[in-house]
Amino acid sequence: MYALYIANKNYSSWSLRPWVLLKTLGIDFDERFVPFLQASSYEEFRKFSPTGLVPCLVDGDLTVWDSLAITEYVAEDYSQVWPGDRAARAWARSAAAEMHSGFATLRNICGMNVGVRVRMHEINGALQTNLDRMDELWSEGLSRFGGPFLAGETFTAVDAFFCPVAFRVQTYDLKLSDTSLAYCERLLELPAMKEWYEAGLAETIRDEPHDAEIGLAGALIEDLRAV
Amino acid sequence: MYALYIANKNYSSWSLRPWVLLKTLGIDFDERFVPFLQASSYEEFRKFSPTGLVPCLVDGDLTVWDSLAITEYVAEDYSQVWPGDRAARAWARSAAAEMHSGFATLRNICGMNVGVRVRMHEINGALQTNLDRMDELWSEGLSRFGGPFLAGETFTAVDAFFCPVAFRVQTYDLKLSDTSLAYCERLLELPAMKEWYEAGLAETIRDEPHDAEIGLAGALIEDLRAV
Ligand SMILES: N[C@@H](CCC(=O)N[C@@H](CS)C(=O)NCC(=O)O)C(=O)O
Ligand SMILES: N[C@@H](CCC(=O)N[C@@H](CS)C(=O)NCC(=O)O)C(=O)O
Repeated sequence: MYALYIANKNYSSWSLRPWVLLKTLGIDFDERFVPFLQASSYEEFRKFSPTGLVPCLVDGDLTVWDSLAITEYVAEDYSQVWPGDRAARAWARSAAAEMHSGFATLRNICGMNVGVRVRMHEINGALQTNLDRMDELWSEGLSRFGGPFLAGETFTAVDAFFCPVAFRVQTYDLKLSDTSLAYCERLLELPAMKEWYEAGLAETIRDEPHDAEIGLAGALIEDLRAV
Repeated sequence: MYALYIANKNYSSWSLRPWVLLKTLGIDFDERFVPFLQASSYEEFRKFSPTGLVPCLVDGDLTVWDSLAITEYVAEDYSQVWPGDRAARAWARSAAAEMHSGFATLRNICGMNVGVRVRMHEINGALQTNLDRMDELWSEGLSRFGGPFLAGETFTAVDAFFCPVAFRVQTYDLKLSDTSLAYCERLLELPAMKEWYEAGLAETIRDEPHDAEIGLAGALIEDLRAV
C-alpha cells in the first residue's frame, strides 16, 4: 500500500493534490501527517523526503517526491488518473504542468488557508492576470471536453491540481467567471474535498508563518477553525 | 510530425529540454524558431502557445504546452523517453519534477546564456543550497543506477531536464563536486548539445533583458557569440 506524507490540511496545497486524487479515485493509502514546524520544517521533512518538502509518496522501497511525479507514478498503476482520451490527456497534462510551475502570484499572495475568510486588500495586476488565465484555461477545458470536470466526465489529476484553487477562491472570495465559480463549487462538493475541509477545520495545530500570510493578503473576517 | 516552438538557443533553457530530448532520441520534428522580443514576447508567443511561453509542441490539431507535459506526451509514443526500469523511472520523474518547480535561485541568478562566460560576484546562501542539492541529487542517481546518465545507461528525459544546468555551470564556472562536473561534461559532449551550442554561438539576434541579467550575476569575461 502507498504511504502518503502530507502536512497540515489547513495550509498544505501541494499535499492536497495527490491526497484528493487518491481519495476520489478510491485508491487506498496510508496517510502520514507531519505538521509544519513554524520556522522551518526542512530537517524534519528531510527524514522522509529528499527535498524536505511534502507531499512525498513511499511505496515499498521506492520514494517518489513531488506532486506531479507522484501523479505519474500512480498513473502507471491506475489508468483513470488521466483522461482516457488522448487529446483530453494531452490537455490535462499541459494544464497540470502549468499549475505546477505557474500561477506564482496567486500562490504567493493567496496562500491556501482553508479555515479562514479574508477580505483582500487589493487585486494587483499580476494577480488579475493569473485569475484571467485561470478563467480562460478552465473555460477552455470545460467547453472542449464537455464537463463537468476539466477534461471531461470524470474527475482526473488535472482537477486535483486545481483543488487548492477552489479553497483559495472560497477563502479570499476571488472573482472569477460564473463558469469558473460553478466549477469551484463542484470541487468543494466532492466527498474527498469535504473530508479534507472538515479535517482542516478540526486541526488545532497552527503554523504562524502560514497564518501571518493572511495579513499580507487582506483582513481576516472569519476564522472557522477549532480552538 | 511534431512541430516544436522554441526561442533563442542562447537563452531559452526551457526550450532546450524537449529539443535535446527529441534530438538525442532521434525523434524527428519540425523546429519553429520564434525569438524573444526585448520587452515582452507574450503577444507573439500567444499566437501558438496558450501560456505565451515556449516550448510548445504542436502535433496535428493538438497543442501541448510546457516542457514536462511535452515530455509525457512524447513518452506515450516513445517509451525510451523515461527509463525502462520502474524504480529508475520513478526517481527520474521525481528529479525532473523537482527541476520543473524548484532550483529557483539558480534559475533566477544564473540565467542560461550559453555564449558568454561570467565571473560570479558571489555565491549567496540560497544559491549554494541549490548547488548542494544538485550535487546530492545527481550523485544519488549516478551511483544508484550505475551511470553514465542520471537514471542509468541511456540518456532519458531526466538528463534533458538538467541539460540547461550544464550550460550554466560552463557559463558561470559553478563549483560542483567532481562527479557532477564530469556529468556536466558528458552532457556538453552529446551531439545534440554541441549542435545547440554552436547554433547559439551563431545567433546574432540578442535579447537585451536576458543579456542584462549577466551584470546582476557577475562580470562578463568573455563573449563567444557571433557579431
Ligand atoms: N513542487 C513540489 C512543491 C512542494 C511544496 O512546496 N510543499 C510545501 C508544502 S505545500 C512544503 O513542503 N513546504 C515546506 C515548508 O514550508 O517548510 C510539489 O509539487 O510537490
Ligand atoms: N513551465 C514552463 C516554463 C516555460 C518558460 O518559462 N519559458 C520561457 C523561456 S525559457 C518563456 O517563454 N518566456 C517568455 C518571455 O520571456 O517572454 C515549461 O516548463 O515549459
